[in-house]
Amino acid sequence: MNRDTSSEDMVLRVLYCGIDHTDLHQIRGELISNTKYPMIPVHEVVGEVIELGSDVKKFSLGDIVGVGGIVGSCGECSLCKSNLEQYCSQRILPYNDIYKDGTPTQGGFSSNMVVHQRFAVKIPEKLAPEQAAPLLCAGVTAYSPLKQWMGSNKNVQGGIMGLGGVGHLGVKIAKAMGHHVTVISSSNKKRKEAMEDLNADVFLVSTDEDEMRKAANSLDYILDTVPVFHPLQSYLSLLKTQGKFILVGAPQQPLEIQAGVMIAGNKTVTGSFIGSMKDVQELLDFWAGKGMTTMIEVVKMSYVNKAFERMEKNDVRYRFVLDVAGSNLE
Amino acid sequence: MNRDTSSEDMVLRVLYCGIDHTDLHQIRGELISNTKYPMIPVHEVVGEVIELGSDVKKFSLGDIVGVGGIVGSCGECSLCKSNLEQYCSQRILPYNDIYKDGTPTQGGFSSNMVVHQRFAVKIPEKLAPEQAAPLLCAGVTAYSPLKQWMGSNKNVQGGIMGLGGVGHLGVKIAKAMGHHVTVISSSNKKRKEAMEDLNADVFLVSTDEDEMRKAANSLDYILDTVPVFHPLQSYLSLLKTQGKFILVGAPQQPLEIQAGVMIAGNKTVTGSFIGSMKDVQELLDFWAGKGMTTMIEVVKMSYVNKAFERMEKNDVRYRFVLDVAGSNLE
Repeated sequence: MNRDTSSEDMVLRVLYCGIDHTDLHQIRGELISNTKYPMIPVHEVVGEVIELGSDVKKFSLGDIVGVGGIVGSCGECSLCKSNLEQYCSQRILPYNDIYKDGTPTQGGFSSNMVVHQRFAVKIPEKLAPEQAAPLLCAGVTAYSPLKQWMGSNKNVQGGIMGLGGVGHLGVKIAKAMGHHVTVISSSNKKRKEAMEDLNADVFLVSTDEDEMRKAANSLDYILDTVPVFHPLQSYLSLLKTQGKFILVGAPQQPLEIQAGVMIAGNKTVTGSFIGSMKDVQELLDFWAGKGMTTMIEVVKMSYVNKAFERMEKNDVRYRFVLDVAGSNLE
Repeated sequence: MNRDTSSEDMVLRVLYCGIDHTDLHQIRGELISNTKYPMIPVHEVVGEVIELGSDVKKFSLGDIVGVGGIVGSCGECSLCKSNLEQYCSQRILPYNDIYKDGTPTQGGFSSNMVVHQRFAVKIPEKLAPEQAAPLLCAGVTAYSPLKQWMGSNKNVQGGIMGLGGVGHLGVKIAKAMGHHVTVISSSNKKRKEAMEDLNADVFLVSTDEDEMRKAANSLDYILDTVPVFHPLQSYLSLLKTQGKFILVGAPQQPLEIQAGVMIAGNKTVTGSFIGSMKDVQELLDFWAGKGMTTMIEVVKMSYVNKAFERMEKNDVRYRFVLDVAGSNLE
């Protein structure tokens, strides 16, 4: 059942795991990539290095490391060679996927985990391990496209749609990058938390036509984290000329775009999948350097079913992190 | 009826005009921007400078110049100041639009035309004036986004959809830029002209599922010039990771995109409107420098209604150009 190990592998003692909607749907077998049971779910794993292969140079025994959205790729293609390995056609997901030798990948709901050094990142000492977990997938999902499209430009008007795991980190990251941040929401319900807890600059209610009209042509980008169908038209009108609409949540139903709006404003709709290992390491260092905090609720493994239930009702601000090592799994 | 003139205006004797589908629909009052009659239609105007305002420094009497997709903009905004004046919110179209002083703009179906020096380009001496006409709007519509997204990179696999006025110039421009060019068409009808007349590298039939599967993930961009509704899904699958799908034709019906495909491949759908005056001048110089030719059918004004009729049936390879000066309009 365990895969072949190489001299570049290491064994982690799992400390914490973040959980998200992908995990929930995967556990229930609701995703297109059919769930193959038995399966050990969950990515966003933080662990301590307890065994090292002879060729592991990046890490030492006792290091606290993170594992994120992928655990393997071909290593040979142009994508792998240019820090875009998350788009490699042979990328391997942390669970419900298959290693090159045919064995299934196994996620973080486990005492130990084996990972290749290329697919681990160092958690900076200043950062508590449980704090780091949501950055490994949700955080880098926001960080990677903002870096790709906005670079180090601080003079940027950003918009964030959706305040879940990815969205709340998106607001924090965009603010830390120096952007002016508008949170766009369908109702006033989240105004207080957006403005006070997440320190957004503007809260825009998308159902208020007057507010929307006033905000037309004002944003350089919108990071859309909403994973259910929504018409894009009115949001595209918020973008400036050459603005970018960045999809990171994937509704199953197709989204509609008006070619005329895209053409008249040289506007762009694009998609982004997690981030590279380089992006993850950069984000962790950036986050620790600025002394930032994720907003998480740490729970024991005995609470996991309740946690998934509450997450499904969006009853978490903003991410559950499981205390695996503290849960006495044996 | 004539607008106020400034010291930066010049008077042209109109020589040639290209005509396109926008002209046809505008003449018939079929566009969203309602046609205001009486109207003097047609952009893509080539003329000889016969009068100069005292502050015109860019041109001399006798110069052959071109007028393209816009004849005015605010001149003050960040777009105008960064060679993106075609996206200025106060851009003025060459006809059926209104100058700042309230008078209507008037197109090229006329003996003479007044234009501000900023909105004219010099036709290189090596280029016959009738040859230049289609480059002023159709040509730059293809050139501008290819330059925007591909820069001077020659190692590029491009795709062109639609072989009308814009598409045929797109193939020629992409080839001249050094790209490897695939023409994508719904049937085999245009294979010969694409491969032999336009010198494309590959002809791909989009209804051939086997061919489409083999071509998956092979293109860096697709320039989509098709102005009627078509499902994008199968075309997006032709793009490599980080590929760009560039819309320049604007169907009225919304286009559908699958967020999952965009996300999994870091793919981009974008739109582009004509090009800047700088782009137009660059294209003319590039075109003349390489000794390239547009494929046009030059006709007299007495043929204009027949020309529109034939154009509507796609019965032209690839653009009608009206010989205005040779038609004795007086």
